[in-house]
Amino acid sequence: MSNTITIIKDGNICSPKGFKSSGVKCGLKVSGDKDIALIVSDVPAIAAALFTSSKVQAAPVLISKEQIANSKTFRAIIANSGNANACTGEVGLRDSQQTIELLASELNIPKDEILISSTGRIGVNLPMDNIKAGIPLAVKALSTKGGNDTSAAIMTTDTVPKEIAVTFKIDNHDITIAGIAKGAGMIAPNMELPHATMLSYITTDALIDQELLNCTLNSANQESFNKITVDGDMSTNDTVYILANGLADNRCIEKDTPEAELFLKALREVMEKLAKDIVLDGEGITKFVTVQVVNANSASDAKLVTRAISDSLLCKTAWFGCDPNWGRIIAAAGYSGAQFDATKINLHYNDLPVVLNGIDAGTKESDLVKLMKQDKFTITVDLNNGDYSDEMWTNDISYEYVKINADYHT
Amino acid sequence: MSNTITIIKDGNICSPKGFKSSGVKCGLKVSGDKDIALIVSDVPAIAAALFTSSKVQAAPVLISKEQIANSKTFRAIIANSGNANACTGEVGLRDSQQTIELLASELNIPKDEILISSTGRIGVNLPMDNIKAGIPLAVKALSTKGGNDTSAAIMTTDTVPKEIAVTFKIDNHDITIAGIAKGAGMIAPNMELPHATMLSYITTDALIDQELLNCTLNSANQESFNKITVDGDMSTNDTVYILANGLADNRCIEKDTPEAELFLKALREVMEKLAKDIVLDGEGITKFVTVQVVNANSASDAKLVTRAISDSLLCKTAWFGCDPNWGRIIAAAGYSGAQFDATKINLHYNDLPVVLNGIDAGTKESDLVKLMKQDKFTITVDLNNGDYSDEMWTNDISYEYVKINADYHT
Repeated sequence: MSNTITIIKDGNICSPKGFKSSGVKCGLKVSGDKDIALIVSDVPAIAAALFTSSKVQAAPVLISKEQIANSKTFRAIIANSGNANACTGEVGLRDSQQTIELLASELNIPKDEILISSTGRIGVNLPMDNIKAGIPLAVKALSTKGGNDTSAAIMTTDTVPKEIAVTFKIDNHDITIAGIAKGAGMIAPNMELPHATMLSYITTDALIDQELLNCTLNSANQESFNKITVDGDMSTNDTVYILANGLADNRCIEKDTPEAELFLKALREVMEKLAKDIVLDGEGITKFVTVQVVNANSASDAKLVTRAISDSLLCKTAWFGCDPNWGRIIAAAGYSGAQFDATKINLHYNDLPVVLNGIDAGTKESDLVKLMKQDKFTITVDLNNGDYSDEMWTNDISYEYVKINADYHT
Repeated sequence: MSNTITIIKDGNICSPKGFKSSGVKCGLKVSGDKDIALIVSDVPAIAAALFTSSKVQAAPVLISKEQIANSKTFRAIIANSGNANACTGEVGLRDSQQTIELLASELNIPKDEILISSTGRIGVNLPMDNIKAGIPLAVKALSTKGGNDTSAAIMTTDTVPKEIAVTFKIDNHDITIAGIAKGAGMIAPNMELPHATMLSYITTDALIDQELLNCTLNSANQESFNKITVDGDMSTNDTVYILANGLADNRCIEKDTPEAELFLKALREVMEKLAKDIVLDGEGITKFVTVQVVNANSASDAKLVTRAISDSLLCKTAWFGCDPNWGRIIAAAGYSGAQFDATKINLHYNDLPVVLNGIDAGTKESDLVKLMKQDKFTITVDLNNGDYSDEMWTNDISYEYVKINADYHT
């Protein structure tokens, strides 16, 4: 069995066999951009999902959780941007249900085979006249060439669409996994589930065991979307869906097999690319920063420190200013709640030592400034207190972030 | 017994009987501003202290903790701004010790009766030649009129000095409590101890029981410095000292008495004023926001929600933009970790209803925008889930905050 995973040039959500998609405008966005995305499998597909762990969950999240619990197969995912349909009470639930009913009727499929998402402003009722007008347009536009329109239609403050497809072989059958994502603000990690005003939809033509699909999505999520934070805020609408329609006609992938490993590896590659793209498109970002913690006393200690540094406004603004001010990083580690001895801590920026045994390592500041002027760099904190490590992907905070978020609504 | 507490006009750290102070320049600040502050009691005073709970503690914090543990009385507090003497290892400890020794010799007092603080850049050794030159100047400048110089000498990114003095009577003796504070960034709450690149020194001429002084400082701190957050970052140097020299000649204040109540009330008034002044002088602040949570299921749930909202970048930037976008507040409550039912949550901006039972209350957006254009407003989240409440004092985040913190060092 070959383990080669190849990125498909110009791959998109329709790259796997048997998927069509579209992205159309129905007037939900002030900008007039595309705001309804639709993905349809030619045949019933199994699905897995991850949802925000917020106590405040948007209507489409609540409805889709029921759909996932009650149906074994799915045909379609519909999403709108421009309105989150969150904090909209009973009306919001009815609006999401009606959206599903309208689509079921238009596609002539069972309504329990539809998953739904919304993203955008919280607390405003979905303008159902627009949705009603948009659904037939989205269905009419369905095409195997609709991928780019679909990734565009889920964007909010995103500046670029995020999409990727990879292919690999299982017993001589070509398997393809494709994914799209949106998310540029309200992006923060949660220990168990996805996080962020983040939506990601994944399609694959693999034939795979249902339970394995659930576990694999979870595992890949830990190594991708759960490693990113833009601003420390988690959303009410975060959702990841994967549809697997089996049209690759491979022997069903079962757990604890080399094929399951390969599928996980490929899915992780898709999700890691999308997660990093979200950070790279973070609101107002000028730098992509990898924060590593090594030799922590426990996994949770390692996570506490990566998260404290990644969410620290003082660290993020220093990175924006290319300021090597390492005291802010050590201070964030200090208040993170993790156990360590401050006189044993080491810190590197890429390969340059910055702090050794808790004090300045003597590296020339001009060398550190030069390093920080790059688009990407890695900060590694060695706690010298155990064997656990963690990594997060984050960004700086610029004037532009404040501008975008002060002006987003009005 | 009268319970009247009066604010002293132009009161300062020297308002209580028997205190002299000074603030001089020794060249630690690039700006050339005052950078050494000295407060001396004419007679030995009892003291209480609170320190940062960070795992990374500056040398002056480590040294002063020992001083507090080993001595019963104190004569002096010395502080420098412009250099935090944090993450400076053995050299940093020696530098703090030497500072104490030099001051003890210059004042001709025991070295174990001196408390010390530093604030400023982390990770750079204290330029001891400057300190050596500065100490005699500070001692020479000691005066009962030195209060304003002292509050100026502890400033870093602060734009205004913070000082207050109050007076009240206990058995016909005038008691005075005075305080100064600094802190404009790296300000965040900690559940047990003070927090922030925050220094506060308090003097009083009250005669008071040592154990009662410890408890009273702790209680007042819970209702003042522990309620503020500017940017969610806690410092390595946070310190609060109180010196009580007994020169008011009152009958000693003992616990569980009306006098103890009155002393607590007055101390709280001093510390609350200083805490609010720190937020009002927060880096780049344009608005002071009080965040209240009522009817939470537990005290910790109430705190989780006030803290999540107060530290949310999306909330803070929306406040800066006078954007009523209440979804961000509800979203922050949602991810805070607190238990509540999203369909029972209410939200008010001052007296205006914004969310009732989880959905928009229908108040005109223009009314909310008008309210948010004020310098101060209160956000109240009613979780309808119990009897516990919490309150925090915080601020918005502006372009200016990013500018100050991107450029602070270089």
